[in-house]
Amino acid sequence: MIDSSLDPDHNRSVITFIGDPDSIRKSALAGVGKAVELIDMRSHHGAHPRVGAVDVIPIVPIRNVTMQDCVDLSCEIGAAIADEFRIPVYFYEESANAEHRRNLANIRRGGYEKLVKGRLDRDRTPDLGPDIAHPTAGATIIGARGPLIAFNVDLRTSDFALAQRIAAEIRRCRDEGRGMAGVKAMAVDLVSRGIVQVSTNITQPDKTTMYDVYDFVRGRAEKAGVEIERSELIGAVRLDDTVRSAAESMKLEGFDETRIVDWWLE
Amino acid sequence: MIDSSLDPDHNRSVITFIGDPDSIRKSALAGVGKAVELIDMRSHHGAHPRVGAVDVIPIVPIRNVTMQDCVDLSCEIGAAIADEFRIPVYFYEESANAEHRRNLANIRRGGYEKLVKGRLDRDRTPDLGPDIAHPTAGATIIGARGPLIAFNVDLRTSDFALAQRIAAEIRRCRDEGRGMAGVKAMAVDLVSRGIVQVSTNITQPDKTTMYDVYDFVRGRAEKAGVEIERSELIGAVRLDDTVRSAAESMKLEGFDETRIVDWWLE
Repeated sequence: MIDSSLDPDHNRSVITFIGDPDSIRKSALAGVGKAVELIDMRSHHGAHPRVGAVDVIPIVPIRNVTMQDCVDLSCEIGAAIADEFRIPVYFYEESANAEHRRNLANIRRGGYEKLVKGRLDRDRTPDLGPDIAHPTAGATIIGARGPLIAFNVDLRTSDFALAQRIAAEIRRCRDEGRGMAGVKAMAVDLVSRGIVQVSTNITQPDKTTMYDVYDFVRGRAEKAGVEIERSELIGAVRLDDTVRSAAESMKLEGFDETRIVDWWLE
Repeated sequence: MIDSSLDPDHNRSVITFIGDPDSIRKSALAGVGKAVELIDMRSHHGAHPRVGAVDVIPIVPIRNVTMQDCVDLSCEIGAAIADEFRIPVYFYEESANAEHRRNLANIRRGGYEKLVKGRLDRDRTPDLGPDIAHPTAGATIIGARGPLIAFNVDLRTSDFALAQRIAAEIRRCRDEGRGMAGVKAMAVDLVSRGIVQVSTNITQPDKTTMYDVYDFVRGRAEKAGVEIERSELIGAVRLDDTVRSAAESMKLEGFDETRIVDWWLE
């Protein structure tokens, strides 16, 4: 396990672990077991969209495995979740069985609350498992995908509408091809801290760096007279993501991994 | 060799190489031999201070060696340079034989042009080698020291006085303890490119990051209506330097090496 993060406003834990396929399978299933034991979706509230106690399990190829290996692994883990825990399972991204299932947001729409309302049929038919949501654990989404950076920027204000406007502007720029390529953005009200957040997923980290997103949000917030409180990375990034973000922040030419002493020592 | 850099205005090459002490000794001496063969200081001009064809050889402990190991190695290489090439050798930083020899700038003052003017006596007596400068190769400074970041910021202007003012302000803040800890700064006129540069050495990279320096220069330049053209790293940095600079640029909390997937894979 290389990172875990949770906070009272999202009310969501993100556990990041690396290993060979067999270790990942065992660890994922152990994690699912513990989540199902501890979490009762009937009394769960949080700012982040989710469909179940184990909302989503992304599997990312890092080294010495192909995307297809990860798709195969996701199928294996998904089947075990459906069989052992009687939880409906949806495959997404590279593991999706249909085009409209590729996008996580499509599967999540309406969340746990909508899923438990009736039989999971038509658009909502799960890929594996029972056709009704697990009463306390809801459903689970699993799939292989490329690297993604979960990156949040906290604004020193309680003005939720400002965070919403900035998130919308990120999406607009992305859709119009004016920067922010592959960035998903939403506003989150961090009630417990009295501030607001622009929460993003950088799904094309080779095109858009963390600093690009930070600088975009900072610029828009500044125009509204609002400062950045801090930013936050959920999970892990690749060395290359860090290097390119650092280079971007300083217009640092010719900076890559080979300029880092440690890179040569391994 | 992990990096080499040179440019027509500094008219100076920086060669960065890593290895075990024996490889470093052999490579350093081979490099000295080639520099002495190719470079004639009698016709050398450049914006960067220097005392000889091989101006300075810093030896930095990276892993599995102590600072004392590097001091010992610098003594060995220094002795060979004095003996084999008949070049006066000065020891600096951790290898210095006297307090006033610790600071590179003290030894360099006046440069090659001053050194060749007469016998090297009193303040200028070398630690090893002949008491007159080598006619074409001048003198060489060598020593063990901690990591240092050679980091330059280019301004989109030909206003040399602005670069001088910013460099002076960095030194003033450093001396008054208002940030810029351990940063040495000077202005360089990049005549060949028609712009100017604030050239820095970050000698306490655990206290001051590249981004700190970039942001300082950017802020001062902006007040004068001048944009940053780019920044430049000479040589290499540690992973930790990169990570902390990235964190600084985005107010990114809790970001360290453990958040980089690659770090776990080695």
